[in-house]
Amino acid sequence: MKEIRISQVGCGIVGHGFLEVVRRKRDMLRDLGLDLKIVSVTDHTGTIYEKNGVDPKKVLGVKTLAEGVANSDMKGLEAIEEIESDLVVEVTPTNIDHGQPGLGHMEMALTQGKNVVTSNKGPLVVAFNRLKDLAGENGARLKYEATVGGTMPLISLVERNLVGNNILGIKGIFNGTCNYILTRMMEEGYPYGYALMEAQELGIAEADPAYDVEGIDTAAKMTILANSVFGMNVKYDDIDVTGITDITTESLALARDRGYLIKLIGEVPALTVKPMLVPRRSPLAVGGTLNAASIETDLSGTITVTGLGAGSIETASAILSDIVNIYTTRNIDDRS
Amino acid sequence: MKEIRISQVGCGIVGHGFLEVVRRKRDMLRDLGLDLKIVSVTDHTGTIYEKNGVDPKKVLGVKTLAEGVANSDMKGLEAIEEIESDLVVEVTPTNIDHGQPGLGHMEMALTQGKNVVTSNKGPLVVAFNRLKDLAGENGARLKYEATVGGTMPLISLVERNLVGNNILGIKGIFNGTCNYILTRMMEEGYPYGYALMEAQELGIAEADPAYDVEGIDTAAKMTILANSVFGMNVKYDDIDVTGITDITTESLALARDRGYLIKLIGEVPALTVKPMLVPRRSPLAVGGTLNAASIETDLSGTITVTGLGAGSIETASAILSDIVNIYTTRNIDDRS
Repeated sequence: MKEIRISQVGCGIVGHGFLEVVRRKRDMLRDLGLDLKIVSVTDHTGTIYEKNGVDPKKVLGVKTLAEGVANSDMKGLEAIEEIESDLVVEVTPTNIDHGQPGLGHMEMALTQGKNVVTSNKGPLVVAFNRLKDLAGENGARLKYEATVGGTMPLISLVERNLVGNNILGIKGIFNGTCNYILTRMMEEGYPYGYALMEAQELGIAEADPAYDVEGIDTAAKMTILANSVFGMNVKYDDIDVTGITDITTESLALARDRGYLIKLIGEVPALTVKPMLVPRRSPLAVGGTLNAASIETDLSGTITVTGLGAGSIETASAILSDIVNIYTTRNIDDRS
Repeated sequence: MKEIRISQVGCGIVGHGFLEVVRRKRDMLRDLGLDLKIVSVTDHTGTIYEKNGVDPKKVLGVKTLAEGVANSDMKGLEAIEEIESDLVVEVTPTNIDHGQPGLGHMEMALTQGKNVVTSNKGPLVVAFNRLKDLAGENGARLKYEATVGGTMPLISLVERNLVGNNILGIKGIFNGTCNYILTRMMEEGYPYGYALMEAQELGIAEADPAYDVEGIDTAAKMTILANSVFGMNVKYDDIDVTGITDITTESLALARDRGYLIKLIGEVPALTVKPMLVPRRSPLAVGGTLNAASIETDLSGTITVTGLGAGSIETASAILSDIVNIYTTRNIDDRS
């Protein structure tokens, strides 16, 4: 049985999901020979540290650790530096301008040779190659499946299942909110503003929807894919971005009459995010909040994978898969 | 650099594809630390054995080894038994009634502790659990991604990327010939017989199409999935099979008017193969010769993967991925 001591930094929606998933899957993990022990959880109000493992139920019962659960006022950086652990789960809120606080957390962890698994796009958008180098120099692993495409196993698909292939390009739908809005506009004939309002009422779009509908989220993901899968050295500003806010019901109807849908498509290494025509018969022609990504390869043709773009438990399960893969695979994925 | 000595048994379309892929990918494999050495190739006319590795170009230039290439009259069984190797690539023609000659080849290889990678459905349909046990007893690995769904990385997706999930069900389109025929019937209004003829002219359907259109191929794949992913003990006859030969243009038109397609769908653990209505918006609503499989999970929701169902290089690339994964991952996939 391999014991893996985990410091979790961040305890919002994904953090709660991760605690819940580890709780549910303890037996399955033991069957794989892995004993995951969450030795600390930190949020913006403090830290709970238990050398023999934090009881997830304790933390799942409260909104912030300050509510009688924290037993230390350590911040994330201190918890990573001072608490003995093998791996850091970094799930603090994302910021794609400066990457903080996640970027500092990851640098600290990797510098100490601790593995990092994350759903936090910001640090990878800002400093992917620097973080990868830092991991390499310190013999640590950095895994980030959950940052791109939610539950779609895109990164590991490319690294593992399609190993042997040259990846020629990746294009797809990487934002469930945009896909929902476009699907409703096309199917119901709603104007953009009405479909957006519906999405907001359902909790599919944020009160401030700009991050999704202007293509920012998709462009952040393209930045990560360009640097990771294609070994490029790309900044967010290198992506050419157009969102969905100017799409009209009429253009969708015109497209439909000719057998096409309109989707917000991100593409690498083209480095574009823009509304594009997608043939109705294409594997990318998925509706609702689904994400879909087509991977063009030299040997295997085009492989498409489709899945939910978000969700607490779903994102957490991608984090868990990354952890299992770190401890059961040789490191062949650092080819860039 | 890890040297992997490979005996290849079978040298038809997939066998040629494998030789070609290994030739093309030698540098990439070395970057991964793997030196694949094909020490022997056997077909029904004989064997070429070169201790330091067979030059793929030699074999790729001839239709049968008897054409001046073979340097031994060893059959497959002898080659596996007598030639020192680490891994056997078994790509002889498939027979789902008795599994031979592949079944004997695999038993011999696994008994000797040699890993087996195959695209040959027959032996796995006939004796999956026996072969898995034999592998376990002798510390060998048995990998068979290429038997199910062509280039779609379905088995490894379940074993690797979705690790942590319970797999609740798999349903999908597993036969490109049927999908092509149904797509043409729906889109062009062709009757079944005409669409079949067109598929035969294009080389998409065999002269004797029964294996595909009667659902036999799909049912064989469901047998393998039931035994491998779901740990069942299923024989081919346990699958309830209906093919596509009785589907009419009218029924397709009726379905279309209500927003549905008709597809030949295989399902496990339901153990059924039958034409089913698929909503046009579903990720399974793919056309042409594509395959698609939806994997229903407890944590990650439903993940769908789509890819080409067949092809020489495509199938060979699945074999190559299996080989790489054997030598770069811990064995966590034998959970059944």
